[in-house]
Amino acid sequence: MAFMQAMRQRWSASDSLVCVGLDPEPGKFPERFGRDTDAVFNFCREIVDATAEHVCAFKPQIAHFSALGAEDALQRLIAHIHERHPGIPVILDSKRGDIGSTAQHYATEAFQRYAADAVTANPYMGRDSVQPFLDHADRGVVILCRTSNPGASELQDLPVQRPDGGTRPLYQCVAEAVARDWNGHGNCMLVVGATWPGQLREVRAIVGDMPFLVPGVGAQGGDVEAVVANARSADGTGLVISSSRAVLYASSGDDFADAAATAARDLRELINRYR
Amino acid sequence: MAFMQAMRQRWSASDSLVCVGLDPEPGKFPERFGRDTDAVFNFCREIVDATAEHVCAFKPQIAHFSALGAEDALQRLIAHIHERHPGIPVILDSKRGDIGSTAQHYATEAFQRYAADAVTANPYMGRDSVQPFLDHADRGVVILCRTSNPGASELQDLPVQRPDGGTRPLYQCVAEAVARDWNGHGNCMLVVGATWPGQLREVRAIVGDMPFLVPGVGAQGGDVEAVVANARSADGTGLVISSSRAVLYASSGDDFADAAATAARDLRELINRYR
Repeated sequence: MAFMQAMRQRWSASDSLVCVGLDPEPGKFPERFGRDTDAVFNFCREIVDATAEHVCAFKPQIAHFSALGAEDALQRLIAHIHERHPGIPVILDSKRGDIGSTAQHYATEAFQRYAADAVTANPYMGRDSVQPFLDHADRGVVILCRTSNPGASELQDLPVQRPDGGTRPLYQCVAEAVARDWNGHGNCMLVVGATWPGQLREVRAIVGDMPFLVPGVGAQGGDVEAVVANARSADGTGLVISSSRAVLYASSGDDFADAAATAARDLRELINRYR
Repeated sequence: MAFMQAMRQRWSASDSLVCVGLDPEPGKFPERFGRDTDAVFNFCREIVDATAEHVCAFKPQIAHFSALGAEDALQRLIAHIHERHPGIPVILDSKRGDIGSTAQHYATEAFQRYAADAVTANPYMGRDSVQPFLDHADRGVVILCRTSNPGASELQDLPVQRPDGGTRPLYQCVAEAVARDWNGHGNCMLVVGATWPGQLREVRAIVGDMPFLVPGVGAQGGDVEAVVANARSADGTGLVISSSRAVLYASSGDDFADAAATAARDLRELINRYR
């Protein structure tokens, strides 16, 4: 099944817009796991199994694996999700982007090697740097638009002059380009941070029902009500709201998996209150 | 020794501005190598040993390794360069960038795991997404400015309105921000493609003697004379001119290493003619 169709089915089946971000940091694991790459797999697997019923997607962040030389753990983890929790899309958060011939290799990394259903990508190099991802019509491409970090404004808010003499911030130019030109296969999403509800509303107005990946609730402090009110699509979905640390490290004790499940369920309910 | 100092010494010692890009594609290797990850290491090692005397730097492109699951080959290759060819900086071309806490993990990947001397980074998320790289004052951070691909203009040339009412293309805003704010440790470089000599000149005027990594000569068709004339620094250096495919695959026969050495030496001489 194509990614976007799977995403819609999963929103409905789980009644959830919650995505659990898998950002393993062995120093924060309960002691019984140890700190090797097996620990990375084992910890993440328990998180996945405990939270699966409450989520619409999982989002492993690749730097957390590659800094540890844990590519094998990442590969096994995604295979585990596909096998044990079929129907839950996996978004590989790697923010890739390069000239076309190299981007082909990044597409191979994400879609063949790791069997991810979708991948995050950086738009700075232009459409041809993302095209090898876009060409996989059955996979999702989640393009950075307005990110959740404090420094996001430095480039993304720069005022770009329009032909009519007015200006529009750079991130809105990205949203417009993706909606107008890059989304020919209908497989694009945008990253818009929860920390900027006003921007969420403006991007929603530009791109219609294109889904958003929304980081920044939880540890980064984004306001759930404002996110849902400003960014949901017409049918009350269109959002993949990602929480990582607040779920993964809800408890540092042996009850970490139960605590993660509770955190994911509570976030789902909080979100659903405002849909 | 800090990266920028090593770079200057190597320009002088090798009398070369040539960087060989290590973009292994097993389908293009001479048959005797086979196609496994050992082949990736062995092929690249022979290229490195054959071309070292003609180059100022090596630039492994990480997607070519990760698509093949060849992280181990990449690690061994960089260790080999450091051991056999000390003094030649290694620039890991991975174009990373993410929110601060994740960027820390990318810095660990590049500088600890792979022991690279410098890394390429994407500026779209703003300075804080690059800060964990910048904080390694002894390593280089090579920031995308105006890239060599055909689609580069889509975002990078957008006209950003200035306080005085004029406009400046986005890539020049990046150059200005890096020169003014990001380069506190003096460890920044910029990526400016060889395919756009006019832009090279404009960026040089903005950033003084900050070095450029220049892809796009060779297979992508950039004009060496125009690059050197427009982009060299005051002392005739300031450039790391990268060629990958035209060196690596100069011959598909058993003379590939000799052919690569000849291609690297010829490029050095061509560049030096215009310095």
